[in-house]
Amino acid sequence: MTTEDLVAHIHRKQSFLCIGLDTDLEKIPQHLLEEEDPIFEFNKGIIDATHHLCVAYKPNIAFYEAHGVKGWKALEKTIHYLNKNHPEIFTIADAKRGDIGNTSTRYAKAFFENLQFDSITVAPYMGKDSIEPFLAFKDKHTILLALTSNQGAYDFQTQKTGEEELYMKVLRTSKTYKNAENLMYVVGATKASFLTGIRRVVPNSFLLVPGVGAQGGSLQEVCKYGMNKDVGLLVNSSRGIIYASHTTDYAIAAAEKAGLIQQQMQEVLLKSK
Amino acid sequence: MTTEDLVAHIHRKQSFLCIGLDTDLEKIPQHLLEEEDPIFEFNKGIIDATHHLCVAYKPNIAFYEAHGVKGWKALEKTIHYLNKNHPEIFTIADAKRGDIGNTSTRYAKAFFENLQFDSITVAPYMGKDSIEPFLAFKDKHTILLALTSNQGAYDFQTQKTGEEELYMKVLRTSKTYKNAENLMYVVGATKASFLTGIRRVVPNSFLLVPGVGAQGGSLQEVCKYGMNKDVGLLVNSSRGIIYASHTTDYAIAAAEKAGLIQQQMQEVLLKSK
Repeated sequence: MTTEDLVAHIHRKQSFLCIGLDTDLEKIPQHLLEEEDPIFEFNKGIIDATHHLCVAYKPNIAFYEAHGVKGWKALEKTIHYLNKNHPEIFTIADAKRGDIGNTSTRYAKAFFENLQFDSITVAPYMGKDSIEPFLAFKDKHTILLALTSNQGAYDFQTQKTGEEELYMKVLRTSKTYKNAENLMYVVGATKASFLTGIRRVVPNSFLLVPGVGAQGGSLQEVCKYGMNKDVGLLVNSSRGIIYASHTTDYAIAAAEKAGLIQQQMQEVLLKSK
Repeated sequence: MTTEDLVAHIHRKQSFLCIGLDTDLEKIPQHLLEEEDPIFEFNKGIIDATHHLCVAYKPNIAFYEAHGVKGWKALEKTIHYLNKNHPEIFTIADAKRGDIGNTSTRYAKAFFENLQFDSITVAPYMGKDSIEPFLAFKDKHTILLALTSNQGAYDFQTQKTGEEELYMKVLRTSKTYKNAENLMYVVGATKASFLTGIRRVVPNSFLLVPGVGAQGGSLQEVCKYGMNKDVGLLVNSSRGIIYASHTTDYAIAAAEKAGLIQQQMQEVLLKSK
């Protein structure tokens, strides 16, 4: 998917909501456990009920990998279901991968070619030759961790490296990589006050913003400091939407929660015109 | 596996060799492609021929994930084969994972509980609460990326953060984490000259050292600067051993290469007495 397609899709739906499919057998409605593939059935329910309210879905790969072969089957079914029924929706493999060159190429092929995700999250610690293999794929997007939503972000990401913090150095350095136009960045909503500085370095890039909702980030703050002329934001909510109810009405409850966020987003988009 | 068991095993075999199972369908002998599970058959051949020469095996998870469900099946079979037939061997899931707390817990369960690996490699960028969930598992080991073997290591890892380089800050900070005694570190053999400084900060920790062989690192240099009283090194070779031959004699050829390295290691161990 091109960035232009994503932007058009955002305007069409008046939403820049990404729904995180962190599907956990201990949290999904118990009646689904009788199904052959409870994870996929849950995801299908969420997707069917919310696809008109969001522009992206983000399965967190850990939740699938935790179930080994069964988990991978559920992941494959979920992404195929999305690509078949909602090809306009942007898909994010939240995998936080990254390794030396020939190994990163394997990860890129796994998620971009085999599973046909539009994008993947990547950790920057190993530098240029661990990231460029992901950037080599046309119309695929590499979402680099910059400033994450957790407390541990202050351990290394916000440490000064020379004149600037490490996450700023990651932003600035990554812009020099080959095919850097395929980069997006993770910036946690819990650190919205950092967005002004981040936008100085990457004014045009899309930012994937986790941490709204369960982790405490504010949508208004994120939009105030992070939005650009192309919107440039994908705001993720996972637990707040998909676990809005733990019974048979879970999909309806998820759609209600997603609808509330979509309305807030529409208001922001109308005001920013 | 306890660290004491690993050290005893090293002395018993007079080897601190780790063999990397970066199994690639394009590089394995072509006759294996007729097997139902060529990846597992290849690994089994390598393990059967080399297990007396090494103390650890390290499947790089990207090479399995690249094949989706089939790849995960091959990984499961490989680790089960190892744990059943060679329970004394230390197993490393080279996965380079790391995410916010509840997600890191999923990854830890996937590799420590479900697959029963002894250890996993973890990326430090997200800090304390992304790493501690791995450390919570008794007699399991978390191998944190410190200074990697690739060129991209100079992008961020060697950048000065305050008084010291980022990788030194990672070492020093991680020592304050809960259950830090379960930490080991990745230090690339291509950067052996950094080992003296690293040993000042983590004198007692095991170091997993990739990059000997195909990537150009020297075993002698690594031992000179990196060895401690408990040996404290696991030196990895992947391609140089497992792809020593591309025909039916691949396992014999791998054993020859592994044997040469084991002999060099034995000489080092005898000299260091």
